[in-house]
Amino acid sequence: MSRHLISIDDLDRAGIERILDLARSFAEVSGREIKKVPALKGRTIVNLFYEASTRTSSSFELAAKRLSADVVNIRSAGSSVDKGESLKDTVRTLSAYDPAAIVIRSPWAGAAQQITGWTDAAVVNAGDGKHEHPTQALLDVFTLTQALGGLEGLRIWIVGDVLHSRVARSNILAFQRMGATVTVCGPPTLIPRGIESLGCAAQDTLANLGEADVVYVLRLQQERMQEAYVPTLREYAQRYQVNRARLREGQIVMHPGPVNRGVELSGEVIDSDAALIDAQVKSGVAVRMAVLYELLVGAPVLQVVA
Amino acid sequence: MSRHLISIDDLDRAGIERILDLARSFAEVSGREIKKVPALKGRTIVNLFYEASTRTSSSFELAAKRLSADVVNIRSAGSSVDKGESLKDTVRTLSAYDPAAIVIRSPWAGAAQQITGWTDAAVVNAGDGKHEHPTQALLDVFTLTQALGGLEGLRIWIVGDVLHSRVARSNILAFQRMGATVTVCGPPTLIPRGIESLGCAAQDTLANLGEADVVYVLRLQQERMQEAYVPTLREYAQRYQVNRARLREGQIVMHPGPVNRGVELSGEVIDSDAALIDAQVKSGVAVRMAVLYELLVGAPVLQVVA
Amino acid sequence: MSRHLISIDDLDRAGIERILDLARSFAEVSGREIKKVPALKGRTIVNLFYEASTRTSSSFELAAKRLSADVVNIRSAGSSVDKGESLKDTVRTLSAYDPAAIVIRSPWAGAAQQITGWTDAAVVNAGDGKHEHPTQALLDVFTLTQALGGLEGLRIWIVGDVLHSRVARSNILAFQRMGATVTVCGPPTLIPRGIESLGCAAQDTLANLGEADVVYVLRLQQERMQEAYVPTLREYAQRYQVNRARLREGQIVMHPGPVNRGVELSGEVIDSDAALIDAQVKSGVAVRMAVLYELLVGAPVLQVVA
Repeated sequence: MSRHLISIDDLDRAGIERILDLARSFAEVSGREIKKVPALKGRTIVNLFYEASTRTSSSFELAAKRLSADVVNIRSAGSSVDKGESLKDTVRTLSAYDPAAIVIRSPWAGAAQQITGWTDAAVVNAGDGKHEHPTQALLDVFTLTQALGGLEGLRIWIVGDVLHSRVARSNILAFQRMGATVTVCGPPTLIPRGIESLGCAAQDTLANLGEADVVYVLRLQQERMQEAYVPTLREYAQRYQVNRARLREGQIVMHPGPVNRGVELSGEVIDSDAALIDAQVKSGVAVRMAVLYELLVGAPVLQVVA
Repeated sequence: MSRHLISIDDLDRAGIERILDLARSFAEVSGREIKKVPALKGRTIVNLFYEASTRTSSSFELAAKRLSADVVNIRSAGSSVDKGESLKDTVRTLSAYDPAAIVIRSPWAGAAQQITGWTDAAVVNAGDGKHEHPTQALLDVFTLTQALGGLEGLRIWIVGDVLHSRVARSNILAFQRMGATVTVCGPPTLIPRGIESLGCAAQDTLANLGEADVVYVLRLQQERMQEAYVPTLREYAQRYQVNRARLREGQIVMHPGPVNRGVELSGEVIDSDAALIDAQVKSGVAVRMAVLYELLVGAPVLQVVA
Repeated sequence: MSRHLISIDDLDRAGIERILDLARSFAEVSGREIKKVPALKGRTIVNLFYEASTRTSSSFELAAKRLSADVVNIRSAGSSVDKGESLKDTVRTLSAYDPAAIVIRSPWAGAAQQITGWTDAAVVNAGDGKHEHPTQALLDVFTLTQALGGLEGLRIWIVGDVLHSRVARSNILAFQRMGATVTVCGPPTLIPRGIESLGCAAQDTLANLGEADVVYVLRLQQERMQEAYVPTLREYAQRYQVNRARLREGQIVMHPGPVNRGVELSGEVIDSDAALIDAQVKSGVAVRMAVLYELLVGAPVLQVVA
């Protein structure tokens, strides 16, 4: 693993497996009454969020606190105009606090990579525009590994707005690296051209969904309607909603959250045993603890969490 | 006490007295230089606030920190449309962090009760719509107990907008349970019909205020004017403002804050020795430590705070 | 040093030097892997910010956390109407938490001084309107001392909107107290009348900038344009921008941040070795640790940080 985690491409299969091993230890810590290890005591983690994200930011915050770090949360409305120079000045300012890591969520693809040039801190990409969201992919791989033992040979369908999704991008890479085959499915307007070059199959209906072992449903951003990528929520749901009628026995359903109930996913599926959505959230803390630990300590975990 | 604190009705008199005993110990902790005990070290408390509330949220945050818990603050603009399903998904997401307790403030009556079905965490109601605000009632009982030794036989007047007040609802229950008699007083439009069924007397002028040992003044929400419950601030103040001219020697004045100075309460009363308003705030931290401790540890406090 | 830090005038030269000594120790702590000392363990610090300020508030927050204090951040939109009574009630409420210190940032000159009458906590002025910002001045003195050994005999130019700047006010006092001579420079509309009574020279062009050892550039608030203090950003930059063409070899450049790149300071100067801007931010944490420590502990630092 490089000094930073910007893309799933920073990790080969062995690297991902190391994160999974660490995450397993930290999931055990999070299951204890005292959910805390002293690994990062006295070190500073900055969470720099240019987009609202209760879910991801609280997950990173909790991961850092369970490692005993001091956390500084910086939220910024931000705007694309501010992008260039002011991001640089913000990062240089925060770097003067000598943080061990900067976790950055940004609407600009490439922001996480860019700031590595301006800081000595380890940089963790918590989502950069439509580019990548690598800790989401890692927590999804971890969740599947916990549920099924591994991803080798799994057939995974990713359903929805693949075109605009950083989650899709990171997850395609990670799922394939761990031995799964990936099919993307959605309206042709929401499937990037040339997706086959990533080694995925593409489908524009759910007709063959039965072949999937795992159905990974993406959130439909409401603004896509205004941009005319999809006609109406109702029509989208009619064609692409994953619901009980379209699933077969034994299929697993995942979603990165937050879900639009009754749009991309039906309420009864969300609440069924088929859905691993809560397990994904739980995995998030353990995996983010693992990533921070791997980047900042990198020593055998057993010495630390024992 | 049940696993949760949703309503004052979750506590019988013995339960309230146990909280008061614990709060006494924790008030002593908060008076030390090192205002901290390790009781909840490594445990996670989520503060989920769907309404802005600097006062209540900082009080709960500090209570949790003084018990050494890790605190995650989630603030949401929220809207009544979001209410149904999305509250469920939010609570399930947060529950995946395996918090020891979720403290919830919500504009929807019944929200705190409802989420107990979706989480293994202890739920503490920090105010749900016009329903209840039980920790406010407990801190008021604690404040009166500290000041006067107990509530048995006290005559307490609650003055103002009783109709819309969760504080009034919880405090009527708690004051009576501890042996006080309660009279509510306000414009007829702001007194709920049938309030006598709760065992209260009702008055529509302050003429007999002299009979009260304790005058508990409610905040007048500015929006009541627009809704035509009261004519003007000026007229409301003329008839119902608690001020020096209307008080007699020896009466105690309380208010849950924040006060509209010069509306429901005159500045000189706020700043006088008759007012216990600062003591109420101070009690808030101790009582919330006690509630969290009782729900999450429930062991003899002396072993822990010694 | 008094019990509070409201103005640079609360410190004589010996007092400033004591803060510098403490800051030196704490800068060493911030350079360690474990950036933490137990000096304020179990004590509560309230950060009360009536103005948005990521930079100053995160610096104080981190300083308090590195001293092991529990921090409560209160942010308020606030408005000048709220000023009088409600500031009093807010401070009394927060004081009921028995905080060791209240750090206050406010748009009202005099707010920090005023609240000392309403609380037993030590009050630290983190900027009050156009009045003072003493920790900024102290961190600037510390930065210069680290870079140059001391300020005795230094010639410092302060360039820009001196009229509206609390930084200018505090820095003039602090720089002079430490033995420097200060010249202020800017458009006549932005230089206060009678500034000479503070012992400064005044200039309205950068023609003689070469005589300065240190060029301290102030932020140009965008709203000054609307108020017609300066014609246009472009014209301001033409006359008063500090850039490479106007600097000579060996001059040091400082700025309290955040910088308007290309307005009061050119990008190439910001990014050059002449600029101490990042060092100023780094100094901020150490100096604020020192101020909190001096006010709240006041014992020989070596006993604590050893």
